[in-house]
Amino acid sequence: MNTDIRKLLEGVSDGTVSIDDALLKLKTKPFEDIGYAKVDMHRKLRQGTAEVIYGAGKTPEQIIGIAETMLKNGQNTILITRLSAETASEIGKYHPLNYYKDARCGIIGPMPVPDGSGKVVVATGGTSDIPVAEEAALTAAVLGNEVVRLYDVGVAGLHRILAHLDDIMSASVIIAIAGMEGALASVIGGLADCPVIAVPTSVGYGASFNGLSALLSMLNSCASGVSVVNIDNGFGAGYLANMINHMNVRKES
Amino acid sequence: MNTDIRKLLEGVSDGTVSIDDALLKLKTKPFEDIGYAKVDMHRKLRQGTAEVIYGAGKTPEQIIGIAETMLKNGQNTILITRLSAETASEIGKYHPLNYYKDARCGIIGPMPVPDGSGKVVVATGGTSDIPVAEEAALTAAVLGNEVVRLYDVGVAGLHRILAHLDDIMSASVIIAIAGMEGALASVIGGLADCPVIAVPTSVGYGASFNGLSALLSMLNSCASGVSVVNIDNGFGAGYLANMINHMNVRKES
Amino acid sequence: MNTDIRKLLEGVSDGTVSIDDALLKLKTKPFEDIGYAKVDMHRKLRQGTAEVIYGAGKTPEQIIGIAETMLKNGQNTILITRLSAETASEIGKYHPLNYYKDARCGIIGPMPVPDGSGKVVVATGGTSDIPVAEEAALTAAVLGNEVVRLYDVGVAGLHRILAHLDDIMSASVIIAIAGMEGALASVIGGLADCPVIAVPTSVGYGASFNGLSALLSMLNSCASGVSVVNIDNGFGAGYLANMINHMNVRKES
Amino acid sequence: MNTDIRKLLEGVSDGTVSIDDALLKLKTKPFEDIGYAKVDMHRKLRQGTAEVIYGAGKTPEQIIGIAETMLKNGQNTILITRLSAETASEIGKYHPLNYYKDARCGIIGPMPVPDGSGKVVVATGGTSDIPVAEEAALTAAVLGNEVVRLYDVGVAGLHRILAHLDDIMSASVIIAIAGMEGALASVIGGLADCPVIAVPTSVGYGASFNGLSALLSMLNSCASGVSVVNIDNGFGAGYLANMINHMNVRKES
Amino acid sequence: MNTDIRKLLEGVSDGTVSIDDALLKLKTKPFEDIGYAKVDMHRKLRQGTAEVIYGAGKTPEQIIGIAETMLKNGQNTILITRLSAETASEIGKYHPLNYYKDARCGIIGPMPVPDGSGKVVVATGGTSDIPVAEEAALTAAVLGNEVVRLYDVGVAGLHRILAHLDDIMSASVIIAIAGMEGALASVIGGLADCPVIAVPTSVGYGASFNGLSALLSMLNSCASGVSVVNIDNGFGAGYLANMINHMNVRKES
Amino acid sequence: MNTDIRKLLEGVSDGTVSIDDALLKLKTKPFEDIGYAKVDMHRKLRQGTAEVIYGAGKTPEQIIGIAETMLKNGQNTILITRLSAETASEIGKYHPLNYYKDARCGIIGPMPVPDGSGKVVVATGGTSDIPVAEEAALTAAVLGNEVVRLYDVGVAGLHRILAHLDDIMSASVIIAIAGMEGALASVIGGLADCPVIAVPTSVGYGASFNGLSALLSMLNSCASGVSVVNIDNGFGAGYLANMINHMNVRKES
Amino acid sequence: MNTDIRKLLEGVSDGTVSIDDALLKLKTKPFEDIGYAKVDMHRKLRQGTAEVIYGAGKTPEQIIGIAETMLKNGQNTILITRLSAETASEIGKYHPLNYYKDARCGIIGPMPVPDGSGKVVVATGGTSDIPVAEEAALTAAVLGNEVVRLYDVGVAGLHRILAHLDDIMSASVIIAIAGMEGALASVIGGLADCPVIAVPTSVGYGASFNGLSALLSMLNSCASGVSVVNIDNGFGAGYLANMINHMNVRKES
Amino acid sequence: MNTDIRKLLEGVSDGTVSIDDALLKLKTKPFEDIGYAKVDMHRKLRQGTAEVIYGAGKTPEQIIGIAETMLKNGQNTILITRLSAETASEIGKYHPLNYYKDARCGIIGPMPVPDGSGKVVVATGGTSDIPVAEEAALTAAVLGNEVVRLYDVGVAGLHRILAHLDDIMSASVIIAIAGMEGALASVIGGLADCPVIAVPTSVGYGASFNGLSALLSMLNSCASGVSVVNIDNGFGAGYLANMINHMNVRKES
Repeated sequence: MNTDIRKLLEGVSDGTVSIDDALLKLKTKPFEDIGYAKVDMHRKLRQGTAEVIYGAGKTPEQIIGIAETMLKNGQNTILITRLSAETASEIGKYHPLNYYKDARCGIIGPMPVPDGSGKVVVATGGTSDIPVAEEAALTAAVLGNEVVRLYDVGVAGLHRILAHLDDIMSASVIIAIAGMEGALASVIGGLADCPVIAVPTSVGYGASFNGLSALLSMLNSCASGVSVVNIDNGFGAGYLANMINHMNVRKES
Repeated sequence: MNTDIRKLLEGVSDGTVSIDDALLKLKTKPFEDIGYAKVDMHRKLRQGTAEVIYGAGKTPEQIIGIAETMLKNGQNTILITRLSAETASEIGKYHPLNYYKDARCGIIGPMPVPDGSGKVVVATGGTSDIPVAEEAALTAAVLGNEVVRLYDVGVAGLHRILAHLDDIMSASVIIAIAGMEGALASVIGGLADCPVIAVPTSVGYGASFNGLSALLSMLNSCASGVSVVNIDNGFGAGYLANMINHMNVRKES
Repeated sequence: MNTDIRKLLEGVSDGTVSIDDALLKLKTKPFEDIGYAKVDMHRKLRQGTAEVIYGAGKTPEQIIGIAETMLKNGQNTILITRLSAETASEIGKYHPLNYYKDARCGIIGPMPVPDGSGKVVVATGGTSDIPVAEEAALTAAVLGNEVVRLYDVGVAGLHRILAHLDDIMSASVIIAIAGMEGALASVIGGLADCPVIAVPTSVGYGASFNGLSALLSMLNSCASGVSVVNIDNGFGAGYLANMINHMNVRKES
Repeated sequence: MNTDIRKLLEGVSDGTVSIDDALLKLKTKPFEDIGYAKVDMHRKLRQGTAEVIYGAGKTPEQIIGIAETMLKNGQNTILITRLSAETASEIGKYHPLNYYKDARCGIIGPMPVPDGSGKVVVATGGTSDIPVAEEAALTAAVLGNEVVRLYDVGVAGLHRILAHLDDIMSASVIIAIAGMEGALASVIGGLADCPVIAVPTSVGYGASFNGLSALLSMLNSCASGVSVVNIDNGFGAGYLANMINHMNVRKES
Repeated sequence: MNTDIRKLLEGVSDGTVSIDDALLKLKTKPFEDIGYAKVDMHRKLRQGTAEVIYGAGKTPEQIIGIAETMLKNGQNTILITRLSAETASEIGKYHPLNYYKDARCGIIGPMPVPDGSGKVVVATGGTSDIPVAEEAALTAAVLGNEVVRLYDVGVAGLHRILAHLDDIMSASVIIAIAGMEGALASVIGGLADCPVIAVPTSVGYGASFNGLSALLSMLNSCASGVSVVNIDNGFGAGYLANMINHMNVRKES
Repeated sequence: MNTDIRKLLEGVSDGTVSIDDALLKLKTKPFEDIGYAKVDMHRKLRQGTAEVIYGAGKTPEQIIGIAETMLKNGQNTILITRLSAETASEIGKYHPLNYYKDARCGIIGPMPVPDGSGKVVVATGGTSDIPVAEEAALTAAVLGNEVVRLYDVGVAGLHRILAHLDDIMSASVIIAIAGMEGALASVIGGLADCPVIAVPTSVGYGASFNGLSALLSMLNSCASGVSVVNIDNGFGAGYLANMINHMNVRKES
Repeated sequence: MNTDIRKLLEGVSDGTVSIDDALLKLKTKPFEDIGYAKVDMHRKLRQGTAEVIYGAGKTPEQIIGIAETMLKNGQNTILITRLSAETASEIGKYHPLNYYKDARCGIIGPMPVPDGSGKVVVATGGTSDIPVAEEAALTAAVLGNEVVRLYDVGVAGLHRILAHLDDIMSASVIIAIAGMEGALASVIGGLADCPVIAVPTSVGYGASFNGLSALLSMLNSCASGVSVVNIDNGFGAGYLANMINHMNVRKES
Repeated sequence: MNTDIRKLLEGVSDGTVSIDDALLKLKTKPFEDIGYAKVDMHRKLRQGTAEVIYGAGKTPEQIIGIAETMLKNGQNTILITRLSAETASEIGKYHPLNYYKDARCGIIGPMPVPDGSGKVVVATGGTSDIPVAEEAALTAAVLGNEVVRLYDVGVAGLHRILAHLDDIMSASVIIAIAGMEGALASVIGGLADCPVIAVPTSVGYGASFNGLSALLSMLNSCASGVSVVNIDNGFGAGYLANMINHMNVRKES
């Protein structure tokens, strides 16, 4: 924004642009630059973190196109979420790409060195929640966070979660992922002393109503410090966890 | 049933009733006696336990009428549920009645000596669930069960429930009562080795949707041995707990 | 738990472990052993009953791995639920396995001799509910219960259920399985004098909303002694029925 | 319609109305008379049956006004539904009116002699359903039907409904009214050999969701011959029962 | 029932059966015969009408088996609903069968001569509702009713329904079938002077929520005389229409 | 916006404002003026139309304050919606105000002369819908539209709506307001040749679910040209109708 | 209508038709002609605009049949919506047809020259909403409107929508299409000064519940001038937009 | 925990407690102390922050009792949420208490000096959301955060939110509070570069369904970094905002 508008103002100042012309230009397009401004600022703060492409519903060609533009602009690492194995294989013909089957994610470029203020713990109630958890974990990792995975620690066997009390108590942020009754978020929220991001999953059957049960359960958590993202939204949880885990970094830069 | 039909058969046997008349009588009204038969059998098995009157929507006069019929028929103890303080006070003018304000229950007659095979544990997630819990506890007690109350042991503070592990592990049946996210049933179901009756409560606000959240959560419990009754149905849970806790007694009689 | 902590205490007792070190160890990991303790206690009580593997979403390899571990640990009988014919056939190459097509269950090892306090009756409203019923029946049978099947006794033809009044009145526990309007649970609950576990099924169309209609109907049952498990959860009902039918056994051991 | 259009046609016939004018008149207003035509025909068929005023949300003045118009037009009997005791008392000052407190209905004029082809049975699951049942029963009675009331015959005590098998088997139409699990409609539908009109009521609590549970249950009835009206719609059921019970009368007239 | 119980009573009368034995027999199995009694009575009333087999979820073998039993028992005409073309073709190898593709119904044997008191009108809002309508129409026809089809007369083009006012006004019963907004039932209910059976269909998209929109709309119909069956339940509507259209016949027999 | 930014640019042009200062100012606050710009433009187009105050949840003092500011700024006419009689009476002490009890609206100042391109027809299914209809009608009137009211023309009595075919066919916009089954929108949508704004109302009981039934029905209207606003949102419908009815005016100005 | 009724009236006038016969004819069939009248009037007003065939559920033969009838009757342009590529290809063998893959629409004949009073802006929140948007855009275009497409201008990147403020501010009607949270309608509604037609889409996952989230969001829009059509109903939005954008034309003709 | 277990270990060490006794004690009650441990640790980290009492459903006596215990234990500041003016006035007789009417909160003791890493912005869509916002703002303030309030910045008037772009861009955490369509969270989420906590409110009517609309909208936000708490849960949002805004502090201590 600065450059364009500065030029315009310089034109006004030196008389090469009339006030009316400047007025018209400012009136009709004052907004588009705001976005870029934000992107710029964002980028400056944390050089080297990944950009993300939401892969669902995009053709291999579209993804390759977007990725190439990013790479040309100096982006080192790119995370592609909701990516099928077939599309990943297509993309792999053009760019080296690590494909993570469970998470249905692909990553172009190197993983960054973690630089957050602590660890992001990703916990799941059962093994069926792992695909969502891996999407969250990879997202957090690719954005520069150390990730600790605690899988299959559902509340029906409390000893499983309690055996990892150290991880929970020393976490910077916790992502609690569960389908069915979604009680994991409350139990972890009660044990932990850090923000807990709850992710309901569509795992289950019958009255789980494709994640509605877990969603309502998590929204009603009686533990403080728990908030919720959309059903199966591993990426959203990983992204938010990264934001929270980089509060220091962001503030200091 | 026995007496009436026996008489009819005796009539057929001694010729005072024709086969056609007997046939007609049997054809048109074979059912009504079944019910009484069941009531009789039931009563024989466990003399002295209480009868129950569902007080909601009944006038003091109606309740007094029903109670008097029961008392005349030799009933010692009567539990009246969903009873307002006002109606209780009206009834108290005619029959001595202990009114339990929290549970909104009244009891006429003495409490029975517990004769179940073990203890019925009544646990709640919070203090707001206590009215439902007291309805369950009084129901179980008045039907002849030793009741242990564990109130305010919600999962957001696991130490509270874990501090009572002995009670949970030695229970015969557990009634787990919770609103909000209803996770208590799963956590207790995972710790206990006995049937757990889950009672969702309408406690909460917003996305608890008057108990729907807890209901769905409990139906989706990943712990085995958990079943669910209607929202706020303390009586139903207490009644079922009594049934389970008297399996021995019933089978032996 | 006993062994590990006993060793620690012995170390404290004989001075080889300092009090501070013991304190630290106890503080950080007191939970994981609880789970095993429970498993042990459980196993001691009823030697010979089956372990259960939830087959849904597991590969043949994973199921074989889990089963082999169980067999090595002395388990005689293993029930595998939600098992496709294909996976069953794969597993059958490694271990002899009886596959029950209707129930979608496989059983490795012999069926135990029933040792419950009575019979578990499994009743369905229609023939379409049989798969859920068979999952419940097999679960109960494999855990050591005599099972009586009453299929297709829906309330629209009352004579069907009433023709089996003896079975219903002499049952120890009844599992009432129905889709559509789910009225079977209330009718059986009114006839029976034992706990009734209601299982709504997703059978039906239109306003059955995949089992929601039967679920709500069962939760609102006006018969006492009825509780509900998740839609299509035959296993959960069979497991709970076993618990109730072994109240005596458990208490006496 | 006849009169107005006849006049128009006579005008065309005798030349006092031009074809174009007649065309315009017929084109723009051909519909309003249809309604009256229907009302006329209806009235001719069954002289003496009642008219109905839906009282909810109408002032005493409005109700009195409508009633007076009806009375002037020769109507003998008027049913006013959803009528509060206060409004009834107001109206009573101007016209003698029998007020039925349970049904919240008032009736001006004499009750007709029943002239249907058979009896209308009104059955309820519990005593709390009686207000809706009385609205149905009064509606049927005031429209000329013999009504048999079977109240509190819920399915949790089958002997109660079976004791009245004669009434059910000899009914012309049955109105089955129930809240909670709404199973009454299916059980009666299975026993009866005539149309069953199911009325869900908002009686209940928790997961009855103000009648939704009973509504879904009744819509999913596995008994043939059952159809459903809106929650608490006693009037609608009584009106439809009258229609069915007067099929003969209507066809013969 | 008559035969069995008569024999028993004869045994009592002639002394070959003791009163106690007779009592026991009557006590344990009084119900099963009720069902047959009802079936018998039903059959006597209307000799020659069809029996119905619900084909969904049944194998060709099962359907053939049931049909053969019916045919042996003197049944002339059999309607098989929810029958796929494949299964129909299988059955056709053993019994001549007319298959109706739209209705997904098969009929074995001749169509009866209509003997109802009037005509059954089957109306649909759109052409997509025709499969449900044909199921209703065939059911009514096969049970002995004259059927008039009014298809694609949705309320968005009122002239279409109004063009058939004669059919509507002279009908004995009307089946109004519509998806989407389901307004057809109200409009027909307002025009007709006979019972209207409303059938919501799952036709539509988006906020039709698989028929929920039409279902709610029909339940809230402000026209009197309208009742509703389950979504897509053409058979139920046809069966009920037959019942109503044979009120006379039934009563006279 | 023009004035402020022009001044800034003039400052840049004549050197009294530095480029950096201008840049900062443009960067941080480019948005707030957009809003005013819009308001201005809007006002210029249609001098003299009313401003609207949403009265719900505002104190008399707040409403008076807002109204006075408007009046000072030259506003002639002010519509206050969702206004209780009490608050209206309070306001009336300070400013002459016409209060419309049915619509729960108050109007300060004169009604404008209608200047739309045609008539806005406001139709309701029943008399209970009139409050919502009056809110819509007053809103449209106060914004400068000729309004035709067609109340109680529900589809269960088609002759009522058809009797007003002229009004419907000559309307510029129609607001169709109905609760219960909401079929009015489809029927009018099929008859009319102009945009129809459907307003579901919360009128009804039982399965109307506070307007949900009418809402879904209207969203699924099979008539083209129908769109829907929120339940009971008379104001929104009136406002949108005004917009559509002033398309000409707006475009020409 | 004119011709038929005129003939009838002429018959009455010249005595060849008796008044009674004319009366009978007018009474029984006054409605069917209304429809044609409307169609005629409609067609006269805007000669040359397209007719529309809703392709879903129609066979190629049916579509070809309908199209040929239209073409014979002088229709130049025909829009076929919800048309699969396969069916389009079939139709293409008989009539030249432009198939639009994204919109799943086919068009026979030339596109009309836009003659609306302004531009129809079609905006989407994301790229996944484009199929619905294209259906709307093509519908508007084929009915004679200039269409401006603003795709992928979702509110999470405000600069995207703000960059097109000119288009929004100069639009005649705006169609705002979005899935997920559906906020686009409110933001555009706040910026624009013309009617906004909101189209929720089924795009999204989890708690979007197939468009329910966007639907509710749009119905609750706090911006005035916004109304909503069914989920994914691009055609409905395009049709309504055309109606509004031709208010002038229609009124002047 | 330390003290009790240390004593036990000292007993083991000096021989006054047998290993078996110690084992038993450790086995049965290892959990209760964990809770305190956590509380201690928590308290050490941030001396001087407030404790919170959830006032809903508590009597003045109960609140006073809890508050006095806290004060005795050295707590300086206590926040009481969901506190009615009446209860506040009662409590005020015993302890000086500042009551915040809008927020329905009371605070005993001084407000802490903010020590978070940045500012917590609390934004609302409308003025009706202010009570929830004030609960959030007071909670954040009392826990030691600088709070910036941006009220009534709903998306229907974008200039309002854009005028505060500086606040949004410089925030540490943002709490976005809105009812109705809940679009505020997405718009702010798109503008901000920090975690956004979305709070749906029950503000609205009709299809807002008591906050469901806003809840779903927020869960589906297409902006990254947004998570959601329960409807009207201002406290939960304020508490979580505090956690995030003290990430530094917590990590450094």
